[in-house]
Amino acid sequence: MSKQIQFTKTGSPDVLQIVDVAIPAPKAHEVQIQIQAIGLNRAEMMYREGAYVIDPVFPATLGYEGAGVVVAIGEGVSELAIGDKVSIIPSFMFTEYGTYGEIVNMPKHAVVKHPDNLSMEQASASWMAFVTAYGGLIEFGKVQKGDVVVLGGATSSVGLASIQIAKMQGATVIALSRTHAKGDVLLEKGADFVIATSEDDVTAKLFEITNGKGVNVVFDPVGGQEAAKIINAMAQDGRYIIYGALSHDDIAVPVFAILGKHLTVRGYELFEITTVPEKLAQAKTFVYDGLASGQLRPEIDKIFAFDEMVKAHEYMASNQQIGKIVVKV
Amino acid sequence: MSKQIQFTKTGSPDVLQIVDVAIPAPKAHEVQIQIQAIGLNRAEMMYREGAYVIDPVFPATLGYEGAGVVVAIGEGVSELAIGDKVSIIPSFMFTEYGTYGEIVNMPKHAVVKHPDNLSMEQASASWMAFVTAYGGLIEFGKVQKGDVVVLGGATSSVGLASIQIAKMQGATVIALSRTHAKGDVLLEKGADFVIATSEDDVTAKLFEITNGKGVNVVFDPVGGQEAAKIINAMAQDGRYIIYGALSHDDIAVPVFAILGKHLTVRGYELFEITTVPEKLAQAKTFVYDGLASGQLRPEIDKIFAFDEMVKAHEYMASNQQIGKIVVKV
Repeated sequence: MSKQIQFTKTGSPDVLQIVDVAIPAPKAHEVQIQIQAIGLNRAEMMYREGAYVIDPVFPATLGYEGAGVVVAIGEGVSELAIGDKVSIIPSFMFTEYGTYGEIVNMPKHAVVKHPDNLSMEQASASWMAFVTAYGGLIEFGKVQKGDVVVLGGATSSVGLASIQIAKMQGATVIALSRTHAKGDVLLEKGADFVIATSEDDVTAKLFEITNGKGVNVVFDPVGGQEAAKIINAMAQDGRYIIYGALSHDDIAVPVFAILGKHLTVRGYELFEITTVPEKLAQAKTFVYDGLASGQLRPEIDKIFAFDEMVKAHEYMASNQQIGKIVVKV
Repeated sequence: MSKQIQFTKTGSPDVLQIVDVAIPAPKAHEVQIQIQAIGLNRAEMMYREGAYVIDPVFPATLGYEGAGVVVAIGEGVSELAIGDKVSIIPSFMFTEYGTYGEIVNMPKHAVVKHPDNLSMEQASASWMAFVTAYGGLIEFGKVQKGDVVVLGGATSSVGLASIQIAKMQGATVIALSRTHAKGDVLLEKGADFVIATSEDDVTAKLFEITNGKGVNVVFDPVGGQEAAKIINAMAQDGRYIIYGALSHDDIAVPVFAILGKHLTVRGYELFEITTVPEKLAQAKTFVYDGLASGQLRPEIDKIFAFDEMVKAHEYMASNQQIGKIVVKV
């Protein structure tokens, strides 16, 4: 028997329960992993609340990220072997697979060997953030050396990963945060400038920093009416990549800015990378190399024990963290 | 001496005056053309009113389109010869060049030979509309056979040209017009469906027509808050190309639509095609071939005489036209 987190109704963190389950042998193209660390994601909180893109089927399991050791392999798996230290890349639905357990089966495309210099906790905190940032900034944002990149919601794990990837490309990074409270942390984490969206004149600041040229790429999970302030300060041919809906309001796109500067506004989801084999392969290589060289460094905020999952979800809801919340198994 | 339309202050159509001017010989890379027909554009109305992207320098000339015969060539022009029947493609500023005259000099990149099957009036009514539509639908919209294309402001000359180009690509065309008053005309001009934005439930109609699949490409000069109704009915990976600012309001982009369907919203101007030599060359070939084969047919609403230019501008302001207003010289 193996312990697994399940829930049988949607609601607050305490709907999550530890149950004993029998895990079947991995099917063809599946890998069985003994999980040693789980990286938490907002998607799991939303799924638990019944507010995610798919509804739970009860009893429901969940979990996008994790790291551990391969303990069994199904038919048709030649890329991985028993004993491999691996991480899980979000590229499945919670109705099919989840990482919140001691032993889990995973589709082989979601499993990647990670470099030896990472601990299991670090590995479980790497792939959602870095692959999301890679897709938004490199695949769709086309960030080049010399570009000025604006990061919305910069204190999230994707935000911190984006700072690192943008700097690795040779870009200047302007991090946005609601207030200046987290400003020093963002500068420590590598941002070149910090703007507080509720305290500063965003458009004026962006023009000031860029000497009137405007910014080339925006990677933002917020959107809403405030987006207009950023879009008005974009440079010719700028790309605005929206990857979240922290504001549920329509994104306000000023027409003279988008027309006169030939801007592109694009919606982007991680699954656009992880469900397309060639794109996923490129992303794996990019992130693996960055992690192995130490240029990409996963940011862990706090580590909880497996039987503290309810507390870990409560902490995630409190929104205090800077970086990833990890649960050790 | 040659007659030319000039204005010395911004304002209503009657600021336009006919004056006699001496036209200098064409400079290097210029062509001198005896104009026989002028196609009118809204840009000229806005420029005359002082409401265009550039301000007039007085005495100001204007005019983006025209057709006529080459009467002299400057140094470095090998592509064109005296006697060629040519049209003018908008790819310059009114502060440099204008087509509102009997004899005009033009930069050679703005001059194109047109097929023999076109009258001068038709030729003067072709290039702004078809090259604009080509750029939006083919270069940036990537319209493919089987796509469903929505055209905003479909009764404009660009709208009518877009119907033809989208149909030529094998797409289904849904034309938008404010009311159903011009609906029959749009169906006659080739649209498969017409939706009246102020009378119909736009989102519901678009889903109804596409059996719930949504539309692939939107080519729209309107934008504003109403855009949300169209964007909510777009299909996966849809492209919304905005090419005008008929509404000055911010374009409202529903965040769950752009995120969940990976939509792209892009601002587009004709000059993105006409100032990039390779793109302009492709556009010239595409439009020339379409005109020569008869698949593209310029739509003329009404023809005025050269000394009726004030009347022609008044008529343009009245917004009754369906297709191009042409002035015969």
